Amino acid sequence: MTKRSTVNIRDIPPADVPAASGAFMVRGETLTVPTEERVELIDVTDRLAALVRASGIREGIVSLWSMHTTFAVFMNESQKALHADIKRLLETMVARDADWMHNDPDHSDCDRFNADAHLRAMLLGHSLTLHVSGGELVLGQWQRVLVAELDGPRARTLRVQMMGMS
Amino acid sequence: MTKRSTVNIRDIPPADVPAASGAFMVRGETLTVPTEERVELIDVTDRLAALVRASGIREGIVSLWSMHTTFAVFMNESQKALHADIKRLLETMVARDADWMHNDPDHSDCDRFNADAHLRAMLLGHSLTLHVSGGELVLGQWQRVLVAELDGPRARTLRVQMMGMS
Amino acid sequence: MTKRSTVNIRDIPPADVPAASGAFMVRGETLTVPTEERVELIDVTDRLAALVRASGIREGIVSLWSMHTTFAVFMNESQKALHADIKRLLETMVARDADWMHNDPDHSDCDRFNADAHLRAMLLGHSLTLHVSGGELVLGQWQRVLVAELDGPRARTLRVQMMGMS
Repeated sequence: MTKRSTVNIRDIPPADVPAASGAFMVRGETLTVPTEERVELIDVTDRLAALVRASGIREGIVSLWSMHTTFAVFMNESQKALHADIKRLLETMVARDADWMHNDPDHSDCDRFNADAHLRAMLLGHSLTLHVSGGELVLGQWQRVLVAELDGPRARTLRVQMMGMS
Repeated sequence: MTKRSTVNIRDIPPADVPAASGAFMVRGETLTVPTEERVELIDVTDRLAALVRASGIREGIVSLWSMHTTFAVFMNESQKALHADIKRLLETMVARDADWMHNDPDHSDCDRFNADAHLRAMLLGHSLTLHVSGGELVLGQWQRVLVAELDGPRARTLRVQMMGMS
Repeated sequence: MTKRSTVNIRDIPPADVPAASGAFMVRGETLTVPTEERVELIDVTDRLAALVRASGIREGIVSLWSMHTTFAVFMNESQKALHADIKRLLETMVARDADWMHNDPDHSDCDRFNADAHLRAMLLGHSLTLHVSGGELVLGQWQRVLVAELDGPRARTLRVQMMGMS
């Protein structure tokens, strides 16, 4: 497996925007993310960057919202070794087979036995707010937008709300 | 106690919004949340959805901000069994009675002995940014907005900033 | 060392803003944060409050984005004792010397051996969305905006996107 990390092309911070003002605009989109394993990290940066570029928004924000409780959104480096470390940390912090009440038919009507997925997603978070400047997503050199499938495989939905000025 | 989870009525993602533009609007509100226990999870989704509906904003975002360091805001499923698991995980990750410096009069002038509350809130987070589309809060089927009292009982304040187009 | 925490001057929540509407505005800035230790917490609230005051935005939001994977942004109380507790918790949850794959030359081409920094930042988060009301940052009495250097010393960059109405 490759030892390298994905690097963004624009690695310098965008210029300051002293006081842009103009027509206000909102665009809402959904990204569908099919997953293949129970626990899996997927890099959605390129798909997101393309949505931002096509939106016509020059200065603003893009808000990501996972449409699922057991599907997280966060930012980190994209490298297979680090992603293995992230999965290992999640397993250490939240054991799958601890006697969680959510998995106990005496207390819960959930038949997925996925308490670990709920708790792990809570630690990673379900949302991210990024900046748009000069019509492009603002990201540091090693920063990638990642989603975490925590109870797959399933077809997942990420909502993308873009707001700003054209 | 009930084994069921609260389910949202609108369980399909809202339609895409190709390029809405119009009058820009901001509304700020505060929600007061009285709490009754030291550690307590409360579902504020219905109160928040009502604020969004009354705001007159059709497409945009709603940003939640806890006005307290020991009062967290996050998203997850609303079910008593899962909420018990969340509290147990917080207790495991951050022990109340470890010898925290914030609780030590030699190092801290805080008389609440609430280091655990500060650290637990930090892991859950103090803020959430949600989407508004078609005049409604955007949420997946099982997604509920939860606040976590971590050093109660107290009267807590959640600030709600809604921004978008009418 | 002082036992006291930094307190904000405006400790009452801002008034509700029933339905402000006006000219939409976006301002983007960067804050440079030089760090001096490998793991260090720094309070940037005053610098941020000054940017908001100078922005000309009266009602809106300010979104913070760390431009680095190993540099976190979060909110908590500013007190030396509590900051020592936060560092200790991070060390307990994510050991620096566990055999992380990201630190193993057989699996990773990263020569900083900083897996712990990536994982700790992931738990704290890289972004924060705050409110602006009445031309001022909205913060509770003890709330301070903190950045966490997790793989320093380095010169770090925090991007600040302010959006709202003038």
